[in-house]
Amino acid sequence: MRSGSANSLPLYARLESTLAAAIAAGEFPVGSRLPTETELGTQFRASRTTVRKAIENLVARGLVEIRRGTGTFVIQPRITQELTELTGFVEDMEALGHTASAKLLDRMILAAEADVAEQLAVAPGTPVMRIRRLRLANGVAMSLDETYLPRDIGDRIVTHDLDTEPIFSLLEQRYGIPLVEADYRLEAALADHEVAGALTVPAGSPVFLIERTSYSTAGRPVDYEKLHYRGDLIRFTTRLARRKPAGS
Amino acid sequence: MRSGSANSLPLYARLESTLAAAIAAGEFPVGSRLPTETELGTQFRASRTTVRKAIENLVARGLVEIRRGTGTFVIQPRITQELTELTGFVEDMEALGHTASAKLLDRMILAAEADVAEQLAVAPGTPVMRIRRLRLANGVAMSLDETYLPRDIGDRIVTHDLDTEPIFSLLEQRYGIPLVEADYRLEAALADHEVAGALTVPAGSPVFLIERTSYSTAGRPVDYEKLHYRGDLIRFTTRLARRKPAGS
Repeated sequence: MRSGSANSLPLYARLESTLAAAIAAGEFPVGSRLPTETELGTQFRASRTTVRKAIENLVARGLVEIRRGTGTFVIQPRITQELTELTGFVEDMEALGHTASAKLLDRMILAAEADVAEQLAVAPGTPVMRIRRLRLANGVAMSLDETYLPRDIGDRIVTHDLDTEPIFSLLEQRYGIPLVEADYRLEAALADHEVAGALTVPAGSPVFLIERTSYSTAGRPVDYEKLHYRGDLIRFTTRLARRKPAGS
Repeated sequence: MRSGSANSLPLYARLESTLAAAIAAGEFPVGSRLPTETELGTQFRASRTTVRKAIENLVARGLVEIRRGTGTFVIQPRITQELTELTGFVEDMEALGHTASAKLLDRMILAAEADVAEQLAVAPGTPVMRIRRLRLANGVAMSLDETYLPRDIGDRIVTHDLDTEPIFSLLEQRYGIPLVEADYRLEAALADHEVAGALTVPAGSPVFLIERTSYSTAGRPVDYEKLHYRGDLIRFTTRLARRKPAGS
């Protein structure tokens, strides 16, 4: 693991780098326990302070977590996903080399509440289709998605196998309803019992909530979603430019 | 409150709309309790089910919260902020008509940990300036900001009154360091004791975490920040376009 440049780093940084490489190589798989501080100190001839600092950095990098009284464990790394264009879950996961799957939880026609009605541009109380699915990446439940569709579209979408057919693909390719753009609203929230149950995390776990209204041509809203992502498994990235000062 | 079009809505939607308007008008200020379900039922000649539905919609709209055993209370509405260009806190709040202020918590030179070193493109262990500030909107603590600056820049920035002078303004206007663009990383997290204490919320409250690295000309990283926003007070919005299918 050592190289000329690595040797110029402080010992804690070298230890951190060695452990990170071992985790990446699968020597310590997700869920496994790292050696204790004492064991690492002996192995690397490092003080407890040095070992602690290396571990703290691994925690900050999201590679391990310290469970009080039981040790330091390798955790599932966050999936880092770009938030730069309108894409669906399957497209996102496939772009990152992950396997996407879905599990239909339920689907029903219900009267649009105020928020759904506003987003789909219908009167409150208008019947709309609600579809709830669990979205998985590499078999791990990542997101609980609530999708609201105008009735005319929803009635056709639910004739398909929603465990295997993405709604975006059905809209665009099967029904000729192009998606043009979407409004995103991003919030940090806590999992309530329903969301926690679906995502198999404790209630009160962090949730990255995306509310998204997708528009077709002529600004017609065709799909309103509430995407409840497991906060510990997802990170979104984007790059924003500074506005040029007026007059320059 | 009633209009021709409002009368065509179901009773729960009319009640919801009446209460939302009363909250917006300040008849029920933030922190106040709404009338009980029984009182509202009597006043609006509505069933308990109808009153509950109206209240549930107000909860979904983020206007009120139900505190078990004590009633329904008006809460501070979320600030909805665009995430479409690189802007600082003061610019964001002023664009929305809010009054921004800041409270310097501490500032110190410390050795860059792995993540800070990577973002500022320095070797781990290089001394950098860390500045921690509480950012307030209309006097309410909205965000705990940790700012890391290269030492040469940081030494100059901390000679100013950071309660009143925004770092972006100092960089651009005082020191001629233009900001060009920034990388954003967005996560949903829980407040630990330190963040919770600064934001005066219970530990375990939702936090919208933004890690932002701002670049000057020639891609030079000049400012790395960890912004811990109160999750219950902020919502970010953006609009994203669909990528045109290949070959079209």
